[in-house]
Amino acid sequence: MEQKTLPSWIAVDWGTSNLRVWAMDDSANILATQSSPLGMNAIAGDEKLSFEGVLIDLIDRWLPTDVPDGQAIPVVICGMAGAKQGWREAPYCEVPTAPADLAMGAVRPDVADPRISVSILPGLCQRGDADVMRGEETQLVGFMALHPDFSGWVCLPGTHSKWARLSDGQITAFRTYMSGEVFALLSQNSILRHSVDETWDDGAFADAVLAAKAQPSGFLHSLFTVRAGALVAKDGAVVPPGASVLSGAVIGAEIADVLGLLKAGDEIALIGAGKLASLYQAALLVHHHKAVPMDGAAITLAGLTRAHRVVIG
Amino acid sequence: MEQKTLPSWIAVDWGTSNLRVWAMDDSANILATQSSPLGMNAIAGDEKLSFEGVLIDLIDRWLPTDVPDGQAIPVVICGMAGAKQGWREAPYCEVPTAPADLAMGAVRPDVADPRISVSILPGLCQRGDADVMRGEETQLVGFMALHPDFSGWVCLPGTHSKWARLSDGQITAFRTYMSGEVFALLSQNSILRHSVDETWDDGAFADAVLAAKAQPSGFLHSLFTVRAGALVAKDGAVVPPGASVLSGAVIGAEIADVLGLLKAGDEIALIGAGKLASLYQAALLVHHHKAVPMDGAAITLAGLTRAHRVVIG
Repeated sequence: MEQKTLPSWIAVDWGTSNLRVWAMDDSANILATQSSPLGMNAIAGDEKLSFEGVLIDLIDRWLPTDVPDGQAIPVVICGMAGAKQGWREAPYCEVPTAPADLAMGAVRPDVADPRISVSILPGLCQRGDADVMRGEETQLVGFMALHPDFSGWVCLPGTHSKWARLSDGQITAFRTYMSGEVFALLSQNSILRHSVDETWDDGAFADAVLAAKAQPSGFLHSLFTVRAGALVAKDGAVVPPGASVLSGAVIGAEIADVLGLLKAGDEIALIGAGKLASLYQAALLVHHHKAVPMDGAAITLAGLTRAHRVVIG
Repeated sequence: MEQKTLPSWIAVDWGTSNLRVWAMDDSANILATQSSPLGMNAIAGDEKLSFEGVLIDLIDRWLPTDVPDGQAIPVVICGMAGAKQGWREAPYCEVPTAPADLAMGAVRPDVADPRISVSILPGLCQRGDADVMRGEETQLVGFMALHPDFSGWVCLPGTHSKWARLSDGQITAFRTYMSGEVFALLSQNSILRHSVDETWDDGAFADAVLAAKAQPSGFLHSLFTVRAGALVAKDGAVVPPGASVLSGAVIGAEIADVLGLLKAGDEIALIGAGKLASLYQAALLVHHHKAVPMDGAAITLAGLTRAHRVVIG
């Protein structure tokens, strides 16, 4: 039986509805990885669960039986574990901020298990144009580690899409859009649910993206045309699929707003995977911006690795 | 016992979730009125109900025991009874259209009861910028009967708010906004439900209305600030109530779009009652437009009265 390699540290991405852990060696190699559906909401909703208990269950087999004093394995966590309802609140850092500031803002919850030493990274906030993020800031840090000279906006699509401006090694501003949640509510719970099915048409999506930029104030009206378009179509006319039109209207409205914030020379990067990232890629291309989606998990891990180096000192 | 006065005709407003009937004399006086929750949806969802049966139940005591041939009492109906899923489909009239065109488009469903003769008024549609309405067109006709020289936009707030442009005795264009439904979904089913309660602040509402016009493309971002505003507030700071901010953002976005369509000399009128109409009034006043809400039921009845005159010939 092979001697098991102990991780030199453990990276953790603790989201609202997911938990992912990586056992890491000193050279940023992944020794093992695990994931679980026990995100913050699941733990907050079950009094038999604790953050430490859930974490230990997931990483126990990576840990030694015991460790000498002062040799506890570092665990670096980003995401909702640092929220007010999380494991221990890690107060927001405020923009503009640099990766090192974020790492220095980590909090250390009390831990019963002597084998681990836990650091929870803070989220990011913006006053004035009020906004918050928890977790995505670590992806931004990872992105900056991989692309140190990038200047412009990074898009992280999702239920609450985030766009962050990076410049001179700092996160200078960001904006959250409720696009994913609004699309889900409209397509599942509004009158538009009757107009949305599996049918898809790339051209109808692109048209809706363009229309969103041409009429930036018309969002609440454009939604109703998803339904009205089918009702007024003449017999035999092809009706653009509602899902394509609605998706284009929502993603298009978000992108139109960001395009208004671009400064000369700003680049656009896209972090994400799957169908949603492809839609953002397509919508950006409608406006002649090429952005190839980058894998979010790898970028999160790069951000946690960067934070680990600062936390360890 | 008093001899009962027979109505010379009966006016009916048949909505999605409500039904209202008026017994009318020849001089446009109301002899009696009734209402019922048996709107189109309730009838479509219960195979034991029929449109004719529900109507007769509601107006039976206004009708004579029997009527001579050719003397059936006219019943004029607007609203969802004319939808595809209604009593009998009354195909949409297309803008631009005049009140007489709408009345001439009425359809006459077969009726088993010989005491009534039923006309169902059509809805209104717009191609190009696709849109539809059913019921509100009759309010517009009533408004035009009461204000024949009005030129500008009429607002009918609701789940799906309608704005219609009236000019030279015609309805020339209209736009539906999903504002009411979007507000309901966001305040009840989205993450913003945690930020919305009974607390209200007129100033916060007005600020959000102004912000919606200042940043017309920022709607999906402004929604998230309802939540983020509370999260980033410093200890002891007064947080604007979420309901006021969300309501101002949604109604403000709708009004900002319409204000962009105003032509020189255009007036604005507001048909509705209760809290929602007051909010539209307040939002319009933020932008220096005075519009006093007018009672919708009276205006519907004026529209049905106008249609009855045309239908009767």
